[in-house]
Order: sequence, then C-alpha cells, then structure tokens
Amino acid sequence: MPLLVVGSVAFDNVQTPTAARENVLGGSASYFSYAASYFTPVRLVSVVGEDWPQEYTDLLASRNIDTAGLQVLPGAKTFRWTGKYLDNMNDRETLDVQLNAFEQFDPVLPENFTRCQFLFLANGSPVIQMKVLEQCTGATLRVADTMDLYINNMRDELLALLKRIDGLVLNDSEAKLLTGEENLVRAGHKVREMGPRFVVIKKGEHGAMFFSKHETYVMPAYPTENVVDPTGAGDSFGGGMMGYLAEQGDFEPKTLKKAMAYGTLAASFTVEAFSLDRLREIEREDIDRRMEEYQRMLSF
Amino acid sequence: MPLLVVGSVAFDNVQTPTAARENVLGGSASYFSYAASYFTPVRLVSVVGEDWPQEYTDLLASRNIDTAGLQVLPGAKTFRWTGKYLDNMNDRETLDVQLNAFEQFDPVLPENFTRCQFLFLANGSPVIQMKVLEQCTGATLRVADTMDLYINNMRDELLALLKRIDGLVLNDSEAKLLTGEENLVRAGHKVREMGPRFVVIKKGEHGAMFFSKHETYVMPAYPTENVVDPTGAGDSFGGGMMGYLAEQGDFEPKTLKKAMAYGTLAASFTVEAFSLDRLREIEREDIDRRMEEYQRMLSF
Repeated sequence: MPLLVVGSVAFDNVQTPTAARENVLGGSASYFSYAASYFTPVRLVSVVGEDWPQEYTDLLASRNIDTAGLQVLPGAKTFRWTGKYLDNMNDRETLDVQLNAFEQFDPVLPENFTRCQFLFLANGSPVIQMKVLEQCTGATLRVADTMDLYINNMRDELLALLKRIDGLVLNDSEAKLLTGEENLVRAGHKVREMGPRFVVIKKGEHGAMFFSKHETYVMPAYPTENVVDPTGAGDSFGGGMMGYLAEQGDFEPKTLKKAMAYGTLAASFTVEAFSLDRLREIEREDIDRRMEEYQRMLSF
Repeated sequence: MPLLVVGSVAFDNVQTPTAARENVLGGSASYFSYAASYFTPVRLVSVVGEDWPQEYTDLLASRNIDTAGLQVLPGAKTFRWTGKYLDNMNDRETLDVQLNAFEQFDPVLPENFTRCQFLFLANGSPVIQMKVLEQCTGATLRVADTMDLYINNMRDELLALLKRIDGLVLNDSEAKLLTGEENLVRAGHKVREMGPRFVVIKKGEHGAMFFSKHETYVMPAYPTENVVDPTGAGDSFGGGMMGYLAEQGDFEPKTLKKAMAYGTLAASFTVEAFSLDRLREIEREDIDRRMEEYQRMLSF
C-alpha cells in the first residue's frame, strides 16, 4: 500500500570527528522516503527552493517515490542544516539552521495523496502536522514525529495533535522533556496516555522501545563499528518501520514488532555513510540478510 | 558445579532522588553471590571487620553460599561506600569510600576452593586478582571485572591480568577508558585483543554487549519502570551470568548467550529495591518466568 510522508527536505553540512561533508541531501522526509521505498511506494510532500537540483528529484523518483507533492518555491532557497557531532557520535550541536523555503511550508496535498491509508508526519510544526492530518481523510494509520523545539514552544498544539494520531515516534530526551519523567518506561506510557495508541522511543545507539496499552518492549540497535554519520538514523528508522507496515497493509501487534526491527536495520545502514550514500548502495535483500542476522543475535 | 567469587563485601549508604538507606548490605561479591546462588552453589572469599553482623553471614549461608572464605579482620571495620544517584538514575557520585578491612585484603583460599572450575574475580585490584588466579589451579573458566580506578592507576597490572583470564566484564565508560575508543563495538573487540577470549560490556539501563572472535551481539535491559536503586546491578549481572554457566557446566557460545540473558534478568530484579531486598523476595521460578517474557519480547 502507498505510504504518504510530509516533512522536510534539506541540504546538510555535517562534521564528524573524522570527516565533513557540505551540501549533501538531507531532511527528515528524504531519509524517511528513501528507507521506506525498500518496502512500499512512497508519496512525498515537502518544499524546496530554486536551488534544488533536478538530480535529487530524479534520485527519489528512481526509488518509486512519487514527488508530485514536492513543491518548488519561487525565489526561495532550500532548508539548510549545519551540525557537528561530538566524539561519542551520539551528541551533536546544531551550528546553523536556515529554514528558508521550509519556513513557508503550507502543504496542500494532491488529491490522490489524501486517500493514502498510511500517513507519517515527519518532524515539523504540530500546526502544519494538524493541517496535513485534516486533509488526509483516507488515513487509517497516522503516525507523527516531533522534537524539543515544539515540545517547548508549541506544547498545546502538540498535545492537540497527540489526541488525533495513532502513533508517536520521538527520541529519549524528547520523551523525558515531554513528560518530565526520567524513567523511559514510565515516560513511554505517559506519552501514550496523552493520546496515541502506541509510542516509539528512539535511543540512538541503544535501540528503541515500544509502548502500547498491553505491550512494552525494547530492541537493541544493530551493533556496528562503522558509524560514519548518524544524521538521519531516526528518520530512516521511521521509514523502515512505516514502510514495512504499509507493505503488510496492517498494524497488528505482530506486524508492529517486525516493523520496529526493520526500522532498526534501516537506521543501521544509514549511519554507515554520509547522507543517503549507504542506502543508495543496498537492495531489499541486504536488509533481509541483516534481519536474519539480527534475529539470530536475539535468539537464545 | 560450584562457583568461586572473590571480591568485596560492604556496608552501603545510598541516596536516590526519592529515598535513602544507610548501612545496608552491599559490595560486589555480595550481589554477585546472591544472584549466582539461584543457579549453583557459591563459594565466597572476602574480608570484613568486627562490625560485621552474624545475621548477614547467616543470610548468605541460607542461600547455599559457602562463607568459609569470609575472613573477619580483628580490630578493623567493614568496607563502607556512600553514594548518590542523580535524577536519571544512571549517573552516580561516590560521596565517600572507607576501604577499612578491604584495604588489607590478601586472600588465602581454603584448599577446597582452589579446585573450583568456575572463577569470578569481582571488582578489585588486579594485583589481588592475580594472586587469587595463581591459587586457583583448578579453574577452567576465569572471568574478571574491573573499574576506572585500576584502568587509570594500575594499567600494567591489569594488562598482565587480561592475558591470563578467559573473560572480562566491564561497563561502557570503562571500556572506552581502557581502549580510547568511543565506538563500543570497536572497544569490545579491542579489549578482547588484549587477552580474554570474550568480553562483556555492561551498559546499565541499555543492556549489555558480548564480544568473542566470531560473535558480536547486544541484549537490551529488561524494561522496568520500577528502578529504586541501581547499586549492584552490574555485580548481579555477573552473578546471574556466571551462576548459569556454572550450573550448565560449560561455556559454549550457546550457553554464554543464555547466561548473558540470565545476567540481564538478575540485574533487573536487583534494581527494583535497595540492597539485596528484591532478590531476597524471589525464587528461581520468578527469574525463569521473566526469562520467558524476555524471550517473547525479543521474538518477531
């Protein structure tokens, strides 16, 4: 089944302790779409500026990502993020953010997009996320991501959104910030009580946790010694997870658990290179091979 | 098979964000022994002062822990540790350490102890650990723990020990300190290259990682919302792990993996109360019930 994602597409400047890249393809919806495309056709809604190269649109389109919703804003530049990773590769500093075109993002969905049953609202303002939600009259699974900026500055709007979605994906520090709870198990269930039927807390190199009314579980990250650039790992996690759900066409507990594992593995590939470089090298069978290994790792 | 452990027995004063306890039974070998006792008979070697209450010896003895090697040092006081946990319950400050009797610890093993095949050198000076190792002529599986103090101040002695043991258990910050490597997968294998055939890196609430020449895997911690006091979690991990190995009487890869899971679960009980309080409430069947749940959690 097709999967709809609404979020940012950006140029990134990234520094790690050992290397740096400028002007690479980034943004939550880029990573999400690309990771999801291994599983299902994707429909992307985002906005870019006039500096956006056709080459990147072609790249996405080549992966069965429908870019009809990728708006080019006249006279604007594309969103640009500059960040630097510290030695541990978990902590990062945002050095500069130029929202540019993304600041004026006011998505109007192509009519056929509104009938998508699987919807992911990638990281963005909860006001925009709500606007998209209201257009998506066909959605049966509505999952969102969020971040500290909106938890701190648009809390009411975020809380309103939480009552309208089925799932929320956020990272550990965001879950603590949203709930004031240091214990992640308690934090996960507290977020769930704010509305969504399930909550996923991403813990970076430590994996991810899942919470629903009747289930609490943890999955470790796939252990890799080759962490080149963690940018986009969380968005790739979302893409792998939602892509598998859309492929299966359901969101039963069993499917959700396997989707969590696919999310974990999609993220594990993304961190092995800058930008989408590692994902561009692999096929679905590489993910499935790693899945076999991952399942073996967790059997005893 | 009996399991020999040599390490500290102490009185702890513990503060957490919500509660405090003074004068409770602590020390690496206490937690280790008690956790291991669910699986196999334990032989304990340690030293205490004249203030040590018979009641604690009785408690250990009641769990099939042989205390013939628990020396009472005349005129001395028992090792005392005072610590405080920060809000996240992962970071802690040591407020005070009084080594007391433990400063003069010079273990001479009862003759029948030296024939134990399964040996655990709990956290302590690598010089003392080496002395014990040399007495343990019957040991076929020799596993040690260590800490930042010895990595910083007795590095050569520690490196000499590493060449003589089969396994090392240490936490994530210690693995980074020992190897200068921020990536834990690389750190684990670097430690392994220093001597031991396998290495276990404990990550607190994020679980544990295992490294041997042909295997690298991660196990998440059992998710619990009821973290009362993390003291002794790592030692209980060691006890559950080594206890299961000694019970099975082998250390094949398959047995080691299940032992890692039992270590994880032993730790998950320990953190649910101060001191040994939670362990004292449970039976082996409680651990096995949690094991079933844990295995279900990791199946998809």
